[in-house]
Amino acid sequence: MLVTLKQIAEELGISITTVSKALKEYPDVSKKTRKLVRETAAMLNYKPNSFAVNLRTKESKTIGLIIPEIVHHFFSSVIKGIISQAEKKGYLVITLQSNESYELEKKQIDLLISKRVDGILISLANGTADYKHISEVLNQETPLVMFDKIAKAIKCSKVTIDDRKAAYKATQYLIDIGCKRIAHFRGPLLPQNSIDRFLGYKQALTDNNIIYDPTLVYLLNKMSFDEGKFYANQLLKDHNDVDGIFINTDLVAIGAISEFNNQGIKVPEQINVIGFSNWFMASVISPSLTTINQPGFEIGKKAFKLLYKEIKDRKKKKIINYKNIVLETDLIVRESTV
Amino acid sequence: MLVTLKQIAEELGISITTVSKALKEYPDVSKKTRKLVRETAAMLNYKPNSFAVNLRTKESKTIGLIIPEIVHHFFSSVIKGIISQAEKKGYLVITLQSNESYELEKKQIDLLISKRVDGILISLANGTADYKHISEVLNQETPLVMFDKIAKAIKCSKVTIDDRKAAYKATQYLIDIGCKRIAHFRGPLLPQNSIDRFLGYKQALTDNNIIYDPTLVYLLNKMSFDEGKFYANQLLKDHNDVDGIFINTDLVAIGAISEFNNQGIKVPEQINVIGFSNWFMASVISPSLTTINQPGFEIGKKAFKLLYKEIKDRKKKKIINYKNIVLETDLIVRESTV
Repeated sequence: MLVTLKQIAEELGISITTVSKALKEYPDVSKKTRKLVRETAAMLNYKPNSFAVNLRTKESKTIGLIIPEIVHHFFSSVIKGIISQAEKKGYLVITLQSNESYELEKKQIDLLISKRVDGILISLANGTADYKHISEVLNQETPLVMFDKIAKAIKCSKVTIDDRKAAYKATQYLIDIGCKRIAHFRGPLLPQNSIDRFLGYKQALTDNNIIYDPTLVYLLNKMSFDEGKFYANQLLKDHNDVDGIFINTDLVAIGAISEFNNQGIKVPEQINVIGFSNWFMASVISPSLTTINQPGFEIGKKAFKLLYKEIKDRKKKKIINYKNIVLETDLIVRESTV
Repeated sequence: MLVTLKQIAEELGISITTVSKALKEYPDVSKKTRKLVRETAAMLNYKPNSFAVNLRTKESKTIGLIIPEIVHHFFSSVIKGIISQAEKKGYLVITLQSNESYELEKKQIDLLISKRVDGILISLANGTADYKHISEVLNQETPLVMFDKIAKAIKCSKVTIDDRKAAYKATQYLIDIGCKRIAHFRGPLLPQNSIDRFLGYKQALTDNNIIYDPTLVYLLNKMSFDEGKFYANQLLKDHNDVDGIFINTDLVAIGAISEFNNQGIKVPEQINVIGFSNWFMASVISPSLTTINQPGFEIGKKAFKLLYKEIKDRKKKKIINYKNIVLETDLIVRESTV
């Protein structure tokens, strides 16, 4: 059973107030008594009640993290980055999953607010198109930082990569190695990063005087391995002249390569493939996958740092300047491109 | 800013006590006032202070989870199982990482206890050989459930698979398909699951009248992809007659297969490979990996259920019967075995 101040008081035959004051090192308790209380508390393995501490300091030293999916190489890297940084500052992290659902995301936000977390980190669900639940958090002056899947319309601090630039770089690379007909497997319509990756792809084509052909763009929903297989098969049926694909995420690209392997289509000789994110898996499949490196651990660290600064600044009643951190990415060339 | 009872009281020109009583639906406040307070609270977006609630109920509705590593397919599946189940019961999950270090694990336990979580779920670090920190938690009557990497000596509820049986099954399969010289890449000396997997391997050899050769067993430390490559290379140097390997975990097996591929050693024609855990990656590499399916999501769910029951039973002052749940595993045969 957890030891209370009362038990320490009974043990020593003094009042609870004296015990409490002694533990806080109040000078109106004698040095001798303070020492006695400290030693007794240590002997009984007394731990201060953190709820009581919370009431006094109005801090929970806990933050909430909402991500779309936990079993996911990129997001687990982000979680690791956040937790490692939070630990350094003595903060605990409550992790919740939105399953890409707007309704669930709203519920999780409410839960964290009612729990009085000191701040919230969030990567939006694909299903989120309305941001009222986010605005409410910000209106209540609870610090909130978005990362990865963000809402441009919302004013708060954000950590992202330049998705458009990264997609442009990937597509330009396909053009540079000689691809003439380049397809794109894009993500759902809503999240900003899937829009930006599509726009980067399109811009690279235009800048290289390649006519944009909308039939070469496939809209995916689940972004799964199986969807990768399915649309690779569809692409082969629809267009026998495609010589390169830029794919929104590695998992889908790995599915596509698996389908090409099964059908005897040679990667990269017949089709060059570039993915996005640099999941660990990308380096161990055969052929290994050329991809954009998305620094999940760094994104997590930076997101926590921004949140921490905001928590501290608000406490000091400082004016909050929202920051927009954009991390660099690079293209990692492997075997799936010539 | 979060709305307080005081603000509601000021808004209505009544006392804080009346507001508090009204929100708790006390009958000594008139129906009309109760309705007015409820409506005002809703309008001002009032959320009850959860720290105050906690002090009253002595429950935090929060549990702690300590795992060795987050960026890990098996553990992220476990986290997902735990969070999904915790959500159903209204519990939040604080996740901490031990990095396989005993010192860090001890620190994390202390942190969770000082935070007064309602219970703790833990998979032990490879570095943990002393269990005093765990006993202390149990002595303080804080519910704790171990999963995956457990300590046999500690009396508490546990969720595991039968590692010995699973390893026996994998080794027996290698024998059944004709392997005569079977190597084993084992995990570190400490965690029970690496001991049990080794013992299952050894038992299968003995039961099939194959002489156990300790030089065929390699002791790994980091259990990484690179270690898999390194020891695969070492094995080829040490023993040119090996025709099968049972490997403690998929990530290492995938490293080994990658090294065999690089050196032109044909899997499975020259060497059959079986892994352990069934990481998603196992199904997408080439050749795909035969492995033991370790149900991470199920383990997480079951572990939370046991913890929840213990939290409730303790509250009702019931006697706690520790449970030992052992989940079934099966062998998934893919291309890395003939």
